[in-house]
Amino acid sequence: MSLVPVVSRADVVLARRLLGDQVRRTPLLAAEAGSLAEGPVSLKLELLQHTGSFKVRGALTALLATEPPRPEAGVVAASGGNHGLAVAWAARRVGTPATVFVPRTAPATKVAGLRTLGADVRQVGSRYAEALAAAREHVLATGADAVHAYDEPAVVAGQGTLALELLEDLPEVDTVLVAVGGGGLAGGIAAALDGRAHVVGVEPDGCPTWHAARAAGEPVDVGVGGVAADSLGATRLGDIAFAALTRARADSLVVPAEAVQEVRRLLWQRFRLAVEPGAAVAAAALTTGGYRPRRGERVAVVVCGGNADPADLG
Amino acid sequence: MSLVPVVSRADVVLARRLLGDQVRRTPLLAAEAGSLAEGPVSLKLELLQHTGSFKVRGALTALLATEPPRPEAGVVAASGGNHGLAVAWAARRVGTPATVFVPRTAPATKVAGLRTLGADVRQVGSRYAEALAAAREHVLATGADAVHAYDEPAVVAGQGTLALELLEDLPEVDTVLVAVGGGGLAGGIAAALDGRAHVVGVEPDGCPTWHAARAAGEPVDVGVGGVAADSLGATRLGDIAFAALTRARADSLVVPAEAVQEVRRLLWQRFRLAVEPGAAVAAAALTTGGYRPRRGERVAVVVCGGNADPADLG
Repeated sequence: MSLVPVVSRADVVLARRLLGDQVRRTPLLAAEAGSLAEGPVSLKLELLQHTGSFKVRGALTALLATEPPRPEAGVVAASGGNHGLAVAWAARRVGTPATVFVPRTAPATKVAGLRTLGADVRQVGSRYAEALAAAREHVLATGADAVHAYDEPAVVAGQGTLALELLEDLPEVDTVLVAVGGGGLAGGIAAALDGRAHVVGVEPDGCPTWHAARAAGEPVDVGVGGVAADSLGATRLGDIAFAALTRARADSLVVPAEAVQEVRRLLWQRFRLAVEPGAAVAAAALTTGGYRPRRGERVAVVVCGGNADPADLG
Repeated sequence: MSLVPVVSRADVVLARRLLGDQVRRTPLLAAEAGSLAEGPVSLKLELLQHTGSFKVRGALTALLATEPPRPEAGVVAASGGNHGLAVAWAARRVGTPATVFVPRTAPATKVAGLRTLGADVRQVGSRYAEALAAAREHVLATGADAVHAYDEPAVVAGQGTLALELLEDLPEVDTVLVAVGGGGLAGGIAAALDGRAHVVGVEPDGCPTWHAARAAGEPVDVGVGGVAADSLGATRLGDIAFAALTRARADSLVVPAEAVQEVRRLLWQRFRLAVEPGAAVAAAALTTGGYRPRRGERVAVVVCGGNADPADLG
């Protein structure tokens, strides 16, 4: 009955083949017992990825999965920042122009980063949804290709490639804690794991898209706010992610937004990891005690981005 | 003829056994061709180590290699910062008090970090040598155990454990680029590799202890200054390091201090690694073109510490 495309593990495997070595195979860091949880946990250091976040996996997959010729107007993205950076980076890689619409609330560092990557940056509105509307108009006016930030099969499959690396480096992983915004990353991971490990989607209480969708039985609009809004500020979960997370029986955990800044400091103090607020959310599931691993449970935490000014960490 | 103790690969293997899993096995990051050099290079992310630098390897080895009982006055260190942090951390781990002498030039973040680890911090003079003299007086007065920052066999052997991990993760490594201050890390790495890979000791022109020692045929005093002085500010190479580096026929490369800050920014922009100046020195060998790998040469760069305020990276 559903018209929502299903992203499968096979799609993720294909995405990985398309990407080849064009994205970084990011390392795992073993965080010893007592550092983030009672037992040891593994950190997937995806903040070390090109452009500072996982988003290049999905964006480049989307561009590589498109048959040439590309439209003269190139590609378009609407993004709170990281997806835009990723599309700009991927566009440069395949040799096509990129236009990126961002909310005015996007951090200055991200806007500067977009311009460095050669993107035509347009700042519109105060929320992701407004930037998305402007991008849609631009697509209609110019014929440019749109790359959605999360609700597109190739994007979700691309993000899922992170989990294939994780499974290779930590085959015995039981549980993956991952932040959810639009759900592209969490959905892709759920698809890639395909039952090999349990997925827990973690969200700050300011924008709990997965929590709300799970409760409602379908993606619904939620308010967006709080400290992680610039990277997790989607107003609703993507349909593809909802299908993937539901199929995987992923759990949902909401953490207080106040915990996020604390976890950023902790990740800096204990590991010299300079993470953005959205990337501290998954670890906050452990430090707040919201998620308590069983004895011996192998937990991996996706540290998904580092695009914040590190000035407040010193 | 020499009274300088020789640190061998066997000593490093023993150090690793003593350390067990008490220090972190830091991950390698593959930096793609074109990012730091023409070809790909591997980054040993030792900035993710406990206390933010490799120094805990040597400090804990030194404490574990000492027969109990420990003196009531505990342990003493003189340090521009990282060694002090490491001794404070290791002392806490074995349950003995730590007194740390630092120059007044030590960054405030490091002093605060020392106090957080429970150390009694004493700020003396403006250079490492003055802090060292004060520490020696303290040892005579109290009977505390001194842990030298680099010129002690257990310390050098402990630092060398980094290279055992590197060899396991990258058995085909040809060349290791590593910063030199007192030479504990570079000397330990040279001992651990024992000919399995070539060592290049890299120094900023402000404090080229290895370069000067190599030219003179023995460690000699050099002026200390420049951007990396707080972490690489030893005034002369250690005797043990000199012996180990000479035996390994290690190369020497001096990079302009001006390049260091640039490399810090580059490591942040391209990899979201927030490194301290001393830890950017080895990578500067590549980015300045001072070291040009042969085609196909497998190069590893030790990114040895992250103890600087990241505020200037944003």
